[in-house]
Amino acid sequence: MKKIVDNIIETLLEILPSGKPVPLHEPFFQGNEKKYINDCIDSRFVSSIGRYVTKFENMLAEFTGSKHAIASVNGTCALHISLLMGGVKNGDEVLVPALTFVATANAVTYCNAIPHFVDSNPVNLGIDIKKLERYLQQDTETINKTLINKKTQRPIRAIVPVHLFGTPVDMDPLEKLCRRFNLAIIEDAAESLGSYYKGRHTGNFGLCGALSFNGNKTITTGGGGAILCNNSTIAKKVKHLTTTARVNNKLNYFHDQTGFNYRMPNINAALGCAQIEQLPEFLKKKRKLAQKYIKAFDGIKGASVLNEPDYAKNNFWLNTLVLDKPDRELLQTILERTNNTGIQTRPVWTLLNKLPMYKKCPSMSLTCAKALKDRVINIPSSINLID
Amino acid sequence: MKKIVDNIIETLLEILPSGKPVPLHEPFFQGNEKKYINDCIDSRFVSSIGRYVTKFENMLAEFTGSKHAIASVNGTCALHISLLMGGVKNGDEVLVPALTFVATANAVTYCNAIPHFVDSNPVNLGIDIKKLERYLQQDTETINKTLINKKTQRPIRAIVPVHLFGTPVDMDPLEKLCRRFNLAIIEDAAESLGSYYKGRHTGNFGLCGALSFNGNKTITTGGGGAILCNNSTIAKKVKHLTTTARVNNKLNYFHDQTGFNYRMPNINAALGCAQIEQLPEFLKKKRKLAQKYIKAFDGIKGASVLNEPDYAKNNFWLNTLVLDKPDRELLQTILERTNNTGIQTRPVWTLLNKLPMYKKCPSMSLTCAKALKDRVINIPSSINLID
Repeated sequence: MKKIVDNIIETLLEILPSGKPVPLHEPFFQGNEKKYINDCIDSRFVSSIGRYVTKFENMLAEFTGSKHAIASVNGTCALHISLLMGGVKNGDEVLVPALTFVATANAVTYCNAIPHFVDSNPVNLGIDIKKLERYLQQDTETINKTLINKKTQRPIRAIVPVHLFGTPVDMDPLEKLCRRFNLAIIEDAAESLGSYYKGRHTGNFGLCGALSFNGNKTITTGGGGAILCNNSTIAKKVKHLTTTARVNNKLNYFHDQTGFNYRMPNINAALGCAQIEQLPEFLKKKRKLAQKYIKAFDGIKGASVLNEPDYAKNNFWLNTLVLDKPDRELLQTILERTNNTGIQTRPVWTLLNKLPMYKKCPSMSLTCAKALKDRVINIPSSINLID
Repeated sequence: MKKIVDNIIETLLEILPSGKPVPLHEPFFQGNEKKYINDCIDSRFVSSIGRYVTKFENMLAEFTGSKHAIASVNGTCALHISLLMGGVKNGDEVLVPALTFVATANAVTYCNAIPHFVDSNPVNLGIDIKKLERYLQQDTETINKTLINKKTQRPIRAIVPVHLFGTPVDMDPLEKLCRRFNLAIIEDAAESLGSYYKGRHTGNFGLCGALSFNGNKTITTGGGGAILCNNSTIAKKVKHLTTTARVNNKLNYFHDQTGFNYRMPNINAALGCAQIEQLPEFLKKKRKLAQKYIKAFDGIKGASVLNEPDYAKNNFWLNTLVLDKPDRELLQTILERTNNTGIQTRPVWTLLNKLPMYKKCPSMSLTCAKALKDRVINIPSSINLID
């Protein structure tokens, strides 16, 4: 084992700068960040109204090829609203991978719905669609065009494909499956800004897609997110619901439903405008870094760095070292050795079905997700690692 | 009627600058706003971690005299978490004034609880405590130390006093009432940063108090809020719940409950630090402006400007013109004439029990709130209206 670990550390050190700590993912501010923010302060419009929010939304829509983009306070809130748009309600179940950040399941809970966990595959780390198909055939039935979980008798309303670390899920077979089983698709594209499936930007496949601009993402607005949507009626609803559902009338304060205070502030959008201007350059650099990693680990025994699938163009948000076989001890040793030498690496999340609040939720068998938990480590992926 | 309107407009024009539009409430940025934000960008910590968030929280705690202040993405989310801390849960009722911004009731709904509307009084525009006492005596019973609504048979768990436009509710009799009826107090202090009840800052009376730093508030962070709390155990829970409930362990991602992504980003906190440094000066100016209004309207027939109660020191967030008698036509004429001449004024909100999603909620009689709806107009209150 020691030799494998030594080889991995040595290979990482060939690519990464030495003598100073290397964070997992730092933001990069070399554009108009200060200019736009200072201008935003001068305008006094720093809050829920302002031209930067609209500008950022337009830039996002253009970049992703989505008809509409609605900016929100963060990705979790974007996912919450997207699920509501998918008709998810009290007592429904929503299929989500067990291997994802906790926010995916939390957003389901905010709708008073129940996460129903599905397994992953080792190629793209996303939902194992073939296994899911067999599971749905056996464990569900369709009554009045609604998919019902035979065990719980609850409707399964939607599915949330998560493009983990920026690698797109195989959307064609997923869409086919969802048509067959009457499932709404809500994409968790929090990690996949700049990732494409067969030429189409992620977040554009389902009814709504949620983006995130948290500090650790490819571009950041401090905190922030957005809902991508190609249906104009739904986009209007999203905007309405994220802005307290106020019916517009200057001299009257009237709200027609229980809305949310989920609008991205203008000052955060100002930062976003400067960041998205640099996104194409960021993506080039992230691709270069990924290629360096993949090449360097090509000859290494016992581990490799995840490449993009044939059908995809990745953003390579977080590069991912994958051990050939699950080995918790080896994984832990690599994590400790790298972090102790200043190279920030991290394991994947505890599988969601293992968290106290979700352990009683319905779940298919999670063989692959469990194995991946003991195989996968994220390695430093900041833009400034390529000059 | 024309004469009353003419007098009111003339009096406003004596105080307000002419020749340019006067907004209701503009933010004021003449301090270290740009310096701190640029420094925040340079530090790269713009997101959920950073020294400005901690600094802002410490400054808030010091200013308000609260043991703890936890910064959040906005006031609505601060109120949501505060209610959860008050033990509000699925199927509970929570007493809220019908005369308040919709977020007060929405936050109750986010807890799957039901707003139960109470009447206001014309002295401070807050809850009519004496009327509420008579109502609770008649319409509720206490079973096992829980207050039960006789009609709905649901527990009434908490009450949300709202310090409307910055005027503190009369907290002593309210606290007495709440002790008698086993009600948790959760303060909606969104509008009352800088307002004191008998020398104690608002937001410090209940279990938790929610502040807001939206763009229209006395100080702003773009979007933002905070939870004030004097109980260290609860403060820890608040911090935990607003930061995805992650159990801290660098090399393990584990969350012990369904948390929220409600943390204020560092870049918004940087703006907040600059703003709070100027708060004492802002409050002096707002007091001066209020005194000018009160004096100017002293001799005017049919209307006056709300002064602070004897027990209170107001922040005078939004100055409030109050007609002697409810008169919807007169109110509408004043609103239209002022807004048409560039003086931004606004009516109070539609009473919450009149909104479609809340019209079936339990309610006491709302005589005074209804009357106030036809008596009250907010008038321009920006800090820059004083020299």
